Formats: sequence, C-alpha cells, structure tokens
Amino acid sequence: MKDRIIINEVGPRDGLQSQDGALTLDQRFAFVEAVLDAGIRHCEMGSFVSPKAVPQMAGTGDLARRLGHREGVELSALVPNMKGYELARDAGVNTMAVVVSATETMNQKNINLSMEQTLEVARAVIERGHGDGNRVQAYLAVAFECPFEGSVDPGYVRSLAAQLLEAGASELVIADTIGAANPAQVKSLMSALGDEHDSAQLACHFHDTRALGLANIFAAMESGIRRFDASVGGLGGCPFAPGAKGNVATEDVVMMAEQMGFTTGVDMPALLGVVNLMSEMLGRPQGGRAHYWLTRNAA
Amino acid sequence: MKDRIIINEVGPRDGLQSQDGALTLDQRFAFVEAVLDAGIRHCEMGSFVSPKAVPQMAGTGDLARRLGHREGVELSALVPNMKGYELARDAGVNTMAVVVSATETMNQKNINLSMEQTLEVARAVIERGHGDGNRVQAYLAVAFECPFEGSVDPGYVRSLAAQLLEAGASELVIADTIGAANPAQVKSLMSALGDEHDSAQLACHFHDTRALGLANIFAAMESGIRRFDASVGGLGGCPFAPGAKGNVATEDVVMMAEQMGFTTGVDMPALLGVVNLMSEMLGRPQGGRAHYWLTRNAA
Repeated sequence: MKDRIIINEVGPRDGLQSQDGALTLDQRFAFVEAVLDAGIRHCEMGSFVSPKAVPQMAGTGDLARRLGHREGVELSALVPNMKGYELARDAGVNTMAVVVSATETMNQKNINLSMEQTLEVARAVIERGHGDGNRVQAYLAVAFECPFEGSVDPGYVRSLAAQLLEAGASELVIADTIGAANPAQVKSLMSALGDEHDSAQLACHFHDTRALGLANIFAAMESGIRRFDASVGGLGGCPFAPGAKGNVATEDVVMMAEQMGFTTGVDMPALLGVVNLMSEMLGRPQGGRAHYWLTRNAA
Repeated sequence: MKDRIIINEVGPRDGLQSQDGALTLDQRFAFVEAVLDAGIRHCEMGSFVSPKAVPQMAGTGDLARRLGHREGVELSALVPNMKGYELARDAGVNTMAVVVSATETMNQKNINLSMEQTLEVARAVIERGHGDGNRVQAYLAVAFECPFEGSVDPGYVRSLAAQLLEAGASELVIADTIGAANPAQVKSLMSALGDEHDSAQLACHFHDTRALGLANIFAAMESGIRRFDASVGGLGGCPFAPGAKGNVATEDVVMMAEQMGFTTGVDMPALLGVVNLMSEMLGRPQGGRAHYWLTRNAA
C-alpha cells in the first residue's frame, strides 16, 4: 500500500486573509465545499480573529455552522486566544489552531504579547481544548527566519516545540511564515524534531516566496514528515505582484507527492477546477509553479 | 571553507537552440562574456550540429575562436559525432559533450542511430578526445523518462553510465531532458551512481517543466552531486508559452545553493543583469521561478 501524504488546505484562511477585499460567506462556503469535493480531508476554513483587524475572516462562526461536521473530514480554525477558542467551539469547530511565533519580536508585532505570554495563551487553549474533547494544533511561526530578528536558532525552536507538545498539542506545525527556509535547514530541523517526537504529530507549513516550497517539502518528506499545509493555486501572495507567491500551491504538492509514489486522495482535475474557481472569485489568475504543465498534462 | 557547487551554464546552447529565431554571433558572444563576467567558470557555449537542423547554433566554430581560451574557465561544446568533434577541436574547443539517450527510440528519433551505434560514436569520440588531450563529457539524456518509451529502468541507466565512464568519459551528466523526474527518483539514482563511481565525475541536468527543478537539485545534492547544468533566466522553454520553463534557472540554483551554505562564485546582481540582457536580446521577459523575489531582494 502506498504511503499517504496528508494535505491540510489553508487557502480559505491563510490564502484569503491576505487578499485585497473579502469574499462573501457564500463564496467562502463554495470554496471549502469545492476543496472537499476534490478529495481533500483536512481544511483550515477560517479564523476567529477580530473582524476589524482581518475583515476577510469576518463571519467565520457562521461559515463553520453552515459547513457543519463531515464524516472523515477535519475542518479547523485558527484562534488567537481563549476568546477566539470559545467562539470557535460555540460554532461547533472541534479542531483549533493556535500560533506561537518563534521570536520575541514577532509575538510582540503580531499579537502584542511577549513570548512568555503567548506561550501561556497557547497552553491555556490547549488545556481547554483537552477538557472539551477538541484537538488543538500548535503552530510555530517564523520557525526558520523572522522578518525582525533574522535567523532563528533551531535549538530554541526545538525547545518551544517540546513545550507545546508536552502541553498536549495534538500536532505541531513548523511554519516558514515568510518563505525564507532552505531545504538543508528544513531537513536538519525536521529530522531533529522527528527524533525527539512522534513524526505523526509533526507537520510543515511552507510559503513559496523564493520558489523553494517544493524543495522544502521534499526535504521534510526525507525527514519523515507526511503532513503539509498548502493553498490551492498558491493563494496568499500579494494580489498585485505577479510571481509573489503565497503558500506552496496544493496542486504542486499533490503532483510531486503522487509522482513520488505517495497517495494523497486528491483528484487533480477537480483540484484544478478549484484553482479556476478561485481565479473567478478573486478576478485574478491563480495557480502554483507547475500550473502551466498541470493544466496541459495532468487532467 | 564552504563546499563548492559548480554551475555549468548551458543557456548559450540548450537555451538558445530552442528559441524561435537565432541570435547573431555578436549577441551569442556577448551572452557568454556576460555569463563569465558574473563569475561562472563552466559554460557550454554552443554545439557543432548541422546548421540546417539547428540554425540557432550556426557559426559555433567562429564563436569558439572568438572566445578563445580563458584561464580557469571551461568552455565546452556539444558534438553529435566525430565530424562535430573535429570541427570543435579545429576551432580550439577542448571540452566536448557527447550525448547518448537512455532509450533505443530516443536515439533513433534524435540522431537516427540505434543505441549500440550511439554508444559506438560516443566511445570513439571519448577515445579521440583522450588522444588529443581533450576532455569529453558524456550526457545520458532522458535518463528518467523518455517521451516515447516512458519510465526508464534505473538499472539500465546505471549500466550505460558504467560503460561511458569505463570508456574514459571525463564526466557523466545525468539529464532529465523533458523535466519529468521527481526528487525521490533523483536521490535513488544519483546515490546509486555515487556509490559506483567518483561523485566528482557526476553531474545533473534538470529541466523545470513541472517546477521540480530545485527539488531535484536538492535531491542530487543530498546524494553528493556538486555539479549542475543550468540556464540563465530558465532560458529554453517554449518561447511563446508563459510558464513553460526550460532548463532550471541558473539564478534559482545559485540562490538555493548559497542559502544552503554552499559557495558558487557567482555574483547575483551581475547574473540578474544577464537575465535582463537575454530579455532584451530575445524580446521576451526571461527569469526563473524565483525571479520576482530575486529582483527585489538579492541585489
């Protein structure tokens, strides 16, 4: 039997939150539906952040209620704090994602909390999640390079990872938030983490800023990682800068994984249909690095 | 001291031969000069094939004479047969590249010879090169997938590699001519070849058709390979299809290698200047996968 690669589609959250202008709830619902129809079984469908700060994510509670529960499907939502957790829980979400940035400055800039305070919030949400019977994924953002502090010490990232897993996080996601990691770093860090923890609890989140997304995913696969965040069409780059990529494109990851002999459960023609859907909704062509080849050969 | 990655710039040959319309000899000379000025020390500057079949490469003898010899620089040329070898030698070239396709059908379609005849030609050129004190690089084309025969048996590729190295090839270049290889295949084949031969005699040539060029180069690096063909600006794709990439872009490879801690000796701003030069000469924007990021951040 083929080894499975799990794709966690984050386009409806990480992809849409950086777009200029918000989609309607109907559009966001149709996006998630199309993602699930393409065979994806893990999807971060929104976030419970302040609609003033991130208007693109307003109404995520209504979206969650409308999506409801699906057999064999994990629909998650990002929550910045306990209030967000409670809103998500009340909307029926049972997989929450909390974010800890790997540097002091990034936590200050992102959520105006110190590292210690951010960890405290994460631990509290994880504990509450446990009590409620929910899953809580812990993200370590800027885990390779921070836009404010530069290179991040892998030893420090490993100590944060250990703290979050020991606190009871269902899963730890190492995030290269600005797309600055190289595959040698990825292999080194993910191999170390794989030695220290259960690989099945580890995942990676790459951005394709420097076109290293697929190389970094291969490096993580080499380290035993089998779960990856990705965004249909590479959604999430700056909307007005051609070539400024966002998250690594789901279709690129599926293509590489399937060609390597993994199974993803994803139907490529349907997935390319989702890329087209997003191009229509956003009024701009979407598509990852391999878009030209995929649209001519993979259907 | 940092480990060195050797870049063999093939834009002036593999890149230009697929362009619609030929550059002048002055332009080709300026291209090679600019490549060398950017710090690249290995460059395939043309081929000695029939100017009727490949008009873009007409006059390579004159180009070679004009370029002359440069201290510490390897200027190579592709030769299809003994006649090509002699033309190259008479023009002062002292590093020749011969090509053997890894499938019977590809040899037939490419040069109208059987596999056995193609190997015979390659062996004869290698032997003559030895006699003349020249270096002969052997290319194994379609080494992963053939457009006519599909997947190529890695065991067969290894036996061809052994034959060519035993015949005295200075170097063996494994070429993914159509850009169909995935990093798992690359790591598997290149690791096996690295066990069987001296890694310093091995190199890889990737096309970026499916956006896997950098992942494949990382996989080869993991197998101990330190020499890669690449083409400035990803030159070599179909000129009229946006996103249809040719060879993996030199600037992408240099970026990744340097970020991984290797040294390449290449000056990135100067290299990006060569990309601009080629955009001007060809009248179409050139640039690899990381072009957007590189032109804003790497200079």
